[in-house]
Amino acid sequence: MNLTLYGPYTNDTENPALFETFKPKIEAYNKKLADNILDEYKLPEDLIPTELGLDVTPIAKKFLSKEEFAITETTATKLASEIASGKLTAVEVFKAFAKRATACHQLVNCAMELFIDEGLERAKELDEYYQKTGKTVGPLHGLPISIKEHYAYKDKVTHAGYVGLIENVTTEWSHSAKLLLDAGAVFYIRTTEPQSLMHLCSRNNITGVCRNPFNTNLTSGGSSSGEGAITAFKGSAFGLGSDGGGSIRAPAAFCGVWGIRCTGGRSPLLGMMTAHSSGQNDGFPVVAGPLANSPEDLELGLKVLLNQPWKDDSSLLPMPWKDVPLPKVSDLTIAICYDDGVVKPTPPMIRGLKYAAKQLEAAGAKVIEWDALNVLEVVQAVHHVYNADKNAAQKKELAASGEPIVPLTYNCLEFGCGDNGISLVDSWKIAQFRDEQRNLYLKTMNDKGVDFILMPTYCNVAPKPDTCHYWGYTCMWNFLDFPGVIFPSGLRADPAVDVPDFSEPRSEIEKYEHDLYNTAPEDFKGAPICLQLIGRRWFCEDTLKAAEAISGVL
Amino acid sequence: MNLTLYGPYTNDTENPALFETFKPKIEAYNKKLADNILDEYKLPEDLIPTELGLDVTPIAKKFLSKEEFAITETTATKLASEIASGKLTAVEVFKAFAKRATACHQLVNCAMELFIDEGLERAKELDEYYQKTGKTVGPLHGLPISIKEHYAYKDKVTHAGYVGLIENVTTEWSHSAKLLLDAGAVFYIRTTEPQSLMHLCSRNNITGVCRNPFNTNLTSGGSSSGEGAITAFKGSAFGLGSDGGGSIRAPAAFCGVWGIRCTGGRSPLLGMMTAHSSGQNDGFPVVAGPLANSPEDLELGLKVLLNQPWKDDSSLLPMPWKDVPLPKVSDLTIAICYDDGVVKPTPPMIRGLKYAAKQLEAAGAKVIEWDALNVLEVVQAVHHVYNADKNAAQKKELAASGEPIVPLTYNCLEFGCGDNGISLVDSWKIAQFRDEQRNLYLKTMNDKGVDFILMPTYCNVAPKPDTCHYWGYTCMWNFLDFPGVIFPSGLRADPAVDVPDFSEPRSEIEKYEHDLYNTAPEDFKGAPICLQLIGRRWFCEDTLKAAEAISGVL
Repeated sequence: MNLTLYGPYTNDTENPALFETFKPKIEAYNKKLADNILDEYKLPEDLIPTELGLDVTPIAKKFLSKEEFAITETTATKLASEIASGKLTAVEVFKAFAKRATACHQLVNCAMELFIDEGLERAKELDEYYQKTGKTVGPLHGLPISIKEHYAYKDKVTHAGYVGLIENVTTEWSHSAKLLLDAGAVFYIRTTEPQSLMHLCSRNNITGVCRNPFNTNLTSGGSSSGEGAITAFKGSAFGLGSDGGGSIRAPAAFCGVWGIRCTGGRSPLLGMMTAHSSGQNDGFPVVAGPLANSPEDLELGLKVLLNQPWKDDSSLLPMPWKDVPLPKVSDLTIAICYDDGVVKPTPPMIRGLKYAAKQLEAAGAKVIEWDALNVLEVVQAVHHVYNADKNAAQKKELAASGEPIVPLTYNCLEFGCGDNGISLVDSWKIAQFRDEQRNLYLKTMNDKGVDFILMPTYCNVAPKPDTCHYWGYTCMWNFLDFPGVIFPSGLRADPAVDVPDFSEPRSEIEKYEHDLYNTAPEDFKGAPICLQLIGRRWFCEDTLKAAEAISGVL
Repeated sequence: MNLTLYGPYTNDTENPALFETFKPKIEAYNKKLADNILDEYKLPEDLIPTELGLDVTPIAKKFLSKEEFAITETTATKLASEIASGKLTAVEVFKAFAKRATACHQLVNCAMELFIDEGLERAKELDEYYQKTGKTVGPLHGLPISIKEHYAYKDKVTHAGYVGLIENVTTEWSHSAKLLLDAGAVFYIRTTEPQSLMHLCSRNNITGVCRNPFNTNLTSGGSSSGEGAITAFKGSAFGLGSDGGGSIRAPAAFCGVWGIRCTGGRSPLLGMMTAHSSGQNDGFPVVAGPLANSPEDLELGLKVLLNQPWKDDSSLLPMPWKDVPLPKVSDLTIAICYDDGVVKPTPPMIRGLKYAAKQLEAAGAKVIEWDALNVLEVVQAVHHVYNADKNAAQKKELAASGEPIVPLTYNCLEFGCGDNGISLVDSWKIAQFRDEQRNLYLKTMNDKGVDFILMPTYCNVAPKPDTCHYWGYTCMWNFLDFPGVIFPSGLRADPAVDVPDFSEPRSEIEKYEHDLYNTAPEDFKGAPICLQLIGRRWFCEDTLKAAEAISGVL
């Protein structure tokens, strides 16, 4: 079969008259969201920037008390132990995070739903339980955790970014949310995602755009858009996202935090709402997973998510999160991918990679270059798998409200085969190609003695809203299913240093993406430069620990 | 979509003129097979039965020397340790098994290829290595292992039962064969499989039919047909089969030996040749696995097959075979399935189940009845998955030689959608149904506190060649992917006791299968009655150990 990056897409689901009937529902939804900003958490006017392009993260310190600030600057792991030892109460921790989260929402629009009152109630109950028994309910006892909206929440609306589902009350907990809850999590905010859930960006027709706390010109990424923003702003102890094409990794990378996409089949998916309701698409795995400010907080979340979920879901592997030792950087062979052969990374990303190479070498690691391996074909293949059903499931959800199609939904519905779909036999051929490429990558790593591949998450730092078209650096790994960890390099984009590279673009997509940066490098000022570390399939623990070790020398 | 047990199939691949050109090749193939029966291993005429319907297993004792007989009656585990300790040489072990295997072939036609000379050479080399180093090359050092023909064998023809591939020399080892070899296995026989690989029976157009050593009226099962026979006859230390619809379990059950189908994704498949070359069919897993005369020999084989194969194949889970303790029968809750609701088991099978229930209860186990759960729908679904590509891959292989379509190939190519195939979206709907049923089964086991399900492997003991149509008792588990262990009950079919049950059949397929038994119960005399134990998905080790414990009280 003939694979392409893009295929045809006809916008035949918009229905302005129908959408008109949803507008009051959207207004009511947003009014509720605004009403749920408690008065004491309203930002004073002088703290609200009047222009875009600013780093709003310093506002937290101005808005929070010293104690609140200190609490929210603490890792989830340490907070959990301080609550467990009685040094802090769940209520004081909750109030600090609720305040910081609400501030974050007012600054970058990261929430789809706020319910601080319910969170406070829950925190009180947890404190009572602790006072009565001297015990915690579990390893997350009292930790305020943010959740991407599309995880079904018991007795609340779950719409997954589709206007047509704006009154869809889910009556059961999603599996992941339930595991977090049973471990003692406190819920109080559900975070934004884009229309279709298939952008590395954030726009939806309900709550609009979520912006990047480090530079509000830019997107927080997606599809776990609000999770990227709130984690970066430290408005939750950690957050729960999901990744089918880069949806944990892009927001983590764009917002300068830690994120992990484990190999498929480990994390609980039941009750995670997506558009792929044409049935079960076995062609690529979707995963649940945390975003956090430290590797140990990712582990904390993963240990809970992987706490025997297979007992209730036979699609999940009985593979609990293992403790593996921190490797010595000097024992590692790291292959650095400076270019995937499709869209060369922009100057700040290249600078980040070169900096990492230098630091790694200085720390005694063996550093080699990773030559791109069939990336265009792999990306084309997964694009076809995404839209294999002729966009039927997406169109059904979109048609339910006739909502306008936002720019990046065009982009994703045109992916691969677009509306043409593929046949069953073509899907088998793609699956065979997938398995062959997985083994080609494995063999190449084995032959070269490569422990991990270090590369960008996207060809650029966080782009502006509605612009990010190329997913290759993330979605190739959804297809190949090798685990990926995002971590900050410590560097930020700096237009004074990261001067545009006007090399002749090799393709239309490369020209498009390079132009985004080259036409206005100053707009990306301060955007975090994060790196993506890729390990062998299933070896998620080792990949996270290696990222921790590498992060330590940067 | 509307699921059915059978759909249309048009035999449009037969081509007598083309097949005529293959006849000399088939003759040459069979001449080589016959020529490779060494003179000293030729059965004397008086040991060769002149009629069918006999138990030929006692012939081994008459043909082998006392020492040879003793060696071949020993478990693989014990033999390995005796070779490792120098008590036996690889050569003496090999000669005994080569003789018994060759006898087996002459009695039931279990071999597609014999190469005793190569095996002897290999055994000598292993002895030399041992003499020189005092060490074994691995845990299978010197064990004669039989392999189903469709595992690619370096520099030999691998045809997978298709006449069109009768000159297809494979230049690389299949992954499973290589792992066995590297662990010290000695190869000398490749065993039979049916045309299309999709019969629970054995007929192919190259070597014909393989018969059951316990009653040569009957089939040895399939598609690991020769493996069932040779393991039962003790012509190899253990054998390597494969299972996509019952192909390990049916021959193990029909021939009265142990067999295991692990959950998919654990055992190496690379280089295992099948007809599903339309691409990678993710709808159901195929697995590799051993057949043996004891549970510890299954473990011995599995430990080698699961010895880090993921290092070379990223489709495999890093899940080595774990040692788990033997459970106490009195701690177990066993649910017995006396009827799958589609085809009720025949009287010998029911007797076997009732006997097991009685013995289990006497041993203190909690025994309950397992109510059939949507079995017809599950079987219909997997039938559709088998033929989803409109039989394109099968037809391509069959058309390559124009070979005649044997009766049970009709049966399997009519399964489910038959030539109609299914659409991509229907395959996704079936995959969703699959995942829902997996969880329904899991939840039912959880709710009832069931540790394992005990049931038949087929609705009958071994049937006659070319008759077995209904795969429900095995193929439902290929779809649900719960592991299954076959083990002998110790009972044999006895027409004096197992009187036909002439209850009104509930369906055409039940009538067909019941008639097979009811019209001539005396023909099944002496057929082993085996049981199938099903455990939770991925818990293969626990299922095998439970089967061992249960077998201990029968």
